[in-house]
Amino acid sequence: MTSLDDLPIRDDLRGRTPYGAPQKSVPVALNVNENTHPIPEDVAHDIVARVAAAILSLNRYPDREFTELREALAEYLGHGLDSDRIWAANGSNEVLQHLLQAFGGPGRTALGFAPTYSMYGLLASGTGTEWVTSGRDADYELGADTAVAAIREHDPDLVLLCAPNNPTGTPVSLDTITAVADAARGIVVVDEAYVEFADPGTPSALTLLEGRPRLVVSRTMSKAFAFAGARVGYLAADPAVIDALRLVRLPYHLSALTQAAALGALAHADEMLAMVDEIRSQRDRISTELAGIGFRPYRSGANFVLFGGVDDPHAVFEALLARGILIREIGLPGSLRVTAGTEAETTAFLEAIAVFAPANAARRGE
Amino acid sequence: MTSLDDLPIRDDLRGRTPYGAPQKSVPVALNVNENTHPIPEDVAHDIVARVAAAILSLNRYPDREFTELREALAEYLGHGLDSDRIWAANGSNEVLQHLLQAFGGPGRTALGFAPTYSMYGLLASGTGTEWVTSGRDADYELGADTAVAAIREHDPDLVLLCAPNNPTGTPVSLDTITAVADAARGIVVVDEAYVEFADPGTPSALTLLEGRPRLVVSRTMSKAFAFAGARVGYLAADPAVIDALRLVRLPYHLSALTQAAALGALAHADEMLAMVDEIRSQRDRISTELAGIGFRPYRSGANFVLFGGVDDPHAVFEALLARGILIREIGLPGSLRVTAGTEAETTAFLEAIAVFAPANAARRGE
Repeated sequence: MTSLDDLPIRDDLRGRTPYGAPQKSVPVALNVNENTHPIPEDVAHDIVARVAAAILSLNRYPDREFTELREALAEYLGHGLDSDRIWAANGSNEVLQHLLQAFGGPGRTALGFAPTYSMYGLLASGTGTEWVTSGRDADYELGADTAVAAIREHDPDLVLLCAPNNPTGTPVSLDTITAVADAARGIVVVDEAYVEFADPGTPSALTLLEGRPRLVVSRTMSKAFAFAGARVGYLAADPAVIDALRLVRLPYHLSALTQAAALGALAHADEMLAMVDEIRSQRDRISTELAGIGFRPYRSGANFVLFGGVDDPHAVFEALLARGILIREIGLPGSLRVTAGTEAETTAFLEAIAVFAPANAARRGE
Repeated sequence: MTSLDDLPIRDDLRGRTPYGAPQKSVPVALNVNENTHPIPEDVAHDIVARVAAAILSLNRYPDREFTELREALAEYLGHGLDSDRIWAANGSNEVLQHLLQAFGGPGRTALGFAPTYSMYGLLASGTGTEWVTSGRDADYELGADTAVAAIREHDPDLVLLCAPNNPTGTPVSLDTITAVADAARGIVVVDEAYVEFADPGTPSALTLLEGRPRLVVSRTMSKAFAFAGARVGYLAADPAVIDALRLVRLPYHLSALTQAAALGALAHADEMLAMVDEIRSQRDRISTELAGIGFRPYRSGANFVLFGGVDDPHAVFEALLARGILIREIGLPGSLRVTAGTEAETTAFLEAIAVFAPANAARRGE
């Protein structure tokens, strides 16, 4: 039998294993930061109707410029954005891949602040871009001074700022983002995949786009919009950045089905986002309750909570999995990450984890 | 206003313009080799039902391994293939991109036989792979000796063989493919995007896979399956090749909508392919009638015909466009390419082009 090692794969791929959280079917899946609330039924009906219409002409290539979708995304984002400042792709991973293809590549570097979204390094490597990381302040915060010092040190061609940050949940202030944009000579990408879960009143980096042609704000419909299965990521930036992305995207990269489904969801944005408040309150409940039993939750502006104070993360992960609750080991010592689910899912998680709480260590005989 | 030149794009992208045929809305669109027959109505209904079911859990990420789809594609292809030999992506362009990412890259070369599918060069460039081309025999044929000589000369890491070839339509014999697979030390990709339109009885390169772990046969649902809008390309190869592609694909690259729609189409493969015979007969009619009025059609095993003997291709292209008929200028001197449409579309094209026929030059006063 032929093995991977027998094939002439790229040298930097040798010995690698594919990215991905385990795909397990469990009653309570809180491992990949999905929105655990399904799409509202009436919205689903409208999406089906739009997709059905698209199927009638599926023998034709889709609109390569996804014009209607760009218009709908611009309207959703607001901030006076026009459709010529909007780009979209099959998930924000592909959006970021397009940015790295256009502005990164061999001989160029992209900088991130670890721990951060693990796909950044893989996307950089996949485009031949060197991936460099710098550290964060205490509790995974990222202050302007720390960020700017890293930019001075590494002089990157791109900066990838995950705001709020995955897997830590840490919000990033506009002060930090502004300082990064001022200090960097390259493209600055603010990945706002989770921004809809930020506390009300938190400003988006979209407010900083005007006058900053190298600033890019990326988003996704996977999280707040409960649309992970549809694979729709997007970004807002200067029209010249959009032109650059046209040079690297595969023609017709967004299917007619994707365009129709996303248009349906955006036409009902209010309803699609109705669960965001509820998810945010479950997130805060997780933080409060975990702290109350001795864990150390980090500040989160997302739909998940990273918490420390776990003696044996792998054992806790396995114990919860045995009870049908899937959370995420993200490789940070003494820490685990959990997505805020429905109230019932959150309750199930909190009850299951309580057994392992530092506050209950005495009871366990430790 | 910021222009593309003001941004730090990759040096090799400077001055480039995006790929793509003009997107024009015309009564008779025969320019991008689509299947001009819409999906049969009862198949469309089943696809809608499957997509509707997928929308119910669209808040969850799709099956990253698209297991059911790989099984359905394996069954469609036959030749004893199992699902562990199948890969799929958003269009065959993305399939080829995955291959180039895994087996090409900086310092590596991919070889094609010009003129061939123009995306090959762009895909190579987008992955940092050097794209080299070699010539063909008379009338764009590709014999084993010519192909093998090019491989000896260039020693490529990948060979991309478009069979039948776009934009010329030229079939490629299994003798040539076998000789290429024997001579090449790298990956040999046989791009069978148009193979369903080959004359009945023509064997597929799938028959050569056994015992050739570096041979890859790619396909698309865009053409024969009338599924261009859904963006589904796929390939068959050794399981080790599939493992290599898992290292470079973006996680969850195939949406739940795409997977559901493709499964629906494959469940009705016979009906979906019912138009293939009709399209093939219109293609042969185009070749026969064009030859009859003095043009020089090249041998085609695809759903389109390239024909020479055109004095001023651009003028003819524009004259047909003015009559609502869109065909393709592909940059070959004295030549144009036309897709075989429905009988009525084909008639409209043939009537319009007759005015410019070499046989009618005298009547035009030339």
